[in-house]
Amino acid sequence: MSVSFTDIERAAQRLAGLAVRTPLIESDVLNDLLGLRVLIKPETLQRVGAFKFRGAYNRLSQIPPKAKAAGVVAFSSGNHAQGVALAARMLGMPALIVMPSDAPKIKVDATLGYGAEIAFYNRMTDDRIAMAAAFAEQRGAIIVPAFDDDDIIAGQGTVGLEMVQQAADLNLKLDMVISPVGGGGLLAGTALAVKARSPGTLMVGVEPVTFNDTKISLEAGVRQAISPSARSLCDALESPAPGALTFPIVQQTVTEIAVVSDAEVAAAMRYAFSTLKLVVEPGGVVGLAALLAGKVASLTPRQVVGVVLSGGNVDPDLFAQVLRGDY
Amino acid sequence: MSVSFTDIERAAQRLAGLAVRTPLIESDVLNDLLGLRVLIKPETLQRVGAFKFRGAYNRLSQIPPKAKAAGVVAFSSGNHAQGVALAARMLGMPALIVMPSDAPKIKVDATLGYGAEIAFYNRMTDDRIAMAAAFAEQRGAIIVPAFDDDDIIAGQGTVGLEMVQQAADLNLKLDMVISPVGGGGLLAGTALAVKARSPGTLMVGVEPVTFNDTKISLEAGVRQAISPSARSLCDALESPAPGALTFPIVQQTVTEIAVVSDAEVAAAMRYAFSTLKLVVEPGGVVGLAALLAGKVASLTPRQVVGVVLSGGNVDPDLFAQVLRGDY
Repeated sequence: MSVSFTDIERAAQRLAGLAVRTPLIESDVLNDLLGLRVLIKPETLQRVGAFKFRGAYNRLSQIPPKAKAAGVVAFSSGNHAQGVALAARMLGMPALIVMPSDAPKIKVDATLGYGAEIAFYNRMTDDRIAMAAAFAEQRGAIIVPAFDDDDIIAGQGTVGLEMVQQAADLNLKLDMVISPVGGGGLLAGTALAVKARSPGTLMVGVEPVTFNDTKISLEAGVRQAISPSARSLCDALESPAPGALTFPIVQQTVTEIAVVSDAEVAAAMRYAFSTLKLVVEPGGVVGLAALLAGKVASLTPRQVVGVVLSGGNVDPDLFAQVLRGDY
Repeated sequence: MSVSFTDIERAAQRLAGLAVRTPLIESDVLNDLLGLRVLIKPETLQRVGAFKFRGAYNRLSQIPPKAKAAGVVAFSSGNHAQGVALAARMLGMPALIVMPSDAPKIKVDATLGYGAEIAFYNRMTDDRIAMAAAFAEQRGAIIVPAFDDDDIIAGQGTVGLEMVQQAADLNLKLDMVISPVGGGGLLAGTALAVKARSPGTLMVGVEPVTFNDTKISLEAGVRQAISPSARSLCDALESPAPGALTFPIVQQTVTEIAVVSDAEVAAAMRYAFSTLKLVVEPGGVVGLAALLAGKVASLTPRQVVGVVLSGGNVDPDLFAQVLRGDY
């Protein structure tokens, strides 16, 4: 594997005092409902409202001084965009983000707010990878991938490192850790950290049923791209294929990929609102959705289960619709 | 004063491992906006979704064994109701709560969910105090006041105790602590704890402009009851007068009472949603509302300010209306 536990420890050192060490929180109501001990890692409380700051800062902070003036280019539906934008501002370099024209407004506004430029693309007709490559060549800028990059994976892995440490502080051993999976940066990084520190902990990824590329790739034993027929409510998880770097890690560390429907995602968002008092975006809540919907096959009663709520950047209009039960 | 710092320390011992030690969280975006270092105490993450569990459990756990069978009676618009209901269930005693018929549904449902009985009253025509007294006499039950009780005040004071300890863990000294004020249990308890451990910290209370009884009482130097002409968005803070026990403590410890409008409260709820990713109820967000609206007169630039977000029990319909800008 291209990323080692030492890389994650070094990422943690780079992020110390800069990323939020998000707490591990519990709800007795949720524990009682599920018959589990659920330790929630709310990366919604992270800078930029999602775990993506971790990987972005870990990557950008290693760009040599002479390359800083030309800056960075990234493509992202929104959370990686914000992470790169904030990290670039902190490190004093320009950032251009290629974003879909239908990205959530809250993610577009925040990316601009952190001082990045945005170039919009049409999700149906444009090739965002080619666009980003062209911009990078024009500027001599460095492309920062959203997940398929060793430093990005290592940065996201600090989520898992903290979870193991924080569970140990509670004198608990994690039986399972559940993470959303889009391209696989968070899942792969978290799995590497968790397995290094706690080899007996099972790793489970969760993706939207309409973007089940990681699940079918694992079943096939080789990366598979899907041709999605419909959008998912989970804008952050609409990747059509696992990454070349993330997939081998996922293959070696992950026990199960669960899938959830939009209705299950919306129900979990309402549960997080009413019971946990947390604002979680659709793509961020899939782990909780899988637990509430009984979709995690590897689970055993009374286990200690860590769940990453990976982001909270959701437009107020959509959130109000979810609260009203429109999804 | 009827409550001592030792009472708060003893309450903390009773609550250890039972109440959530809610984290102290920060948002760099909020800090930058206000030019302050804001340490947020999200009691939204407390059991029952509000600080009220602390005082209720501290009071109920001191009821002698022979009095447990007859149980307790409380009157409350909702958060104290839930706190008493849960504490009673944990301690194995019955609880009857006298609640207004227009209490938020989420609070009614949760109170029933914790196994309490509810007797509803009409906010305009019924005397809830007389109703509670009659029920208590019928049953031989103990009345548990929402704020005007030494053990309740001491329990709520553990919020302030934790804030001072958690700030110290960050090597920070709190210049100011801001708390909502309804009847004054949270404000009085928190102020006692903060002033005992950190005498230089200024205490500020915030109440709705339509329920400014604590502000006018402090100005008059004696408790004043108001005759409110309108409801407030802050259902949890609609007390018409400070408590007999809480007011002397507030008089001796609190520097300023700020007041906020419903529009300022709604704006702060939207800010907590979009930037902090926290679900906060109207009465819980008044401290943040006062900061965002520039209503805290005692504030100095670059200060370290602790803010209690005291509860998150808000109906989804109202929250959706607030997100849509109806308030």
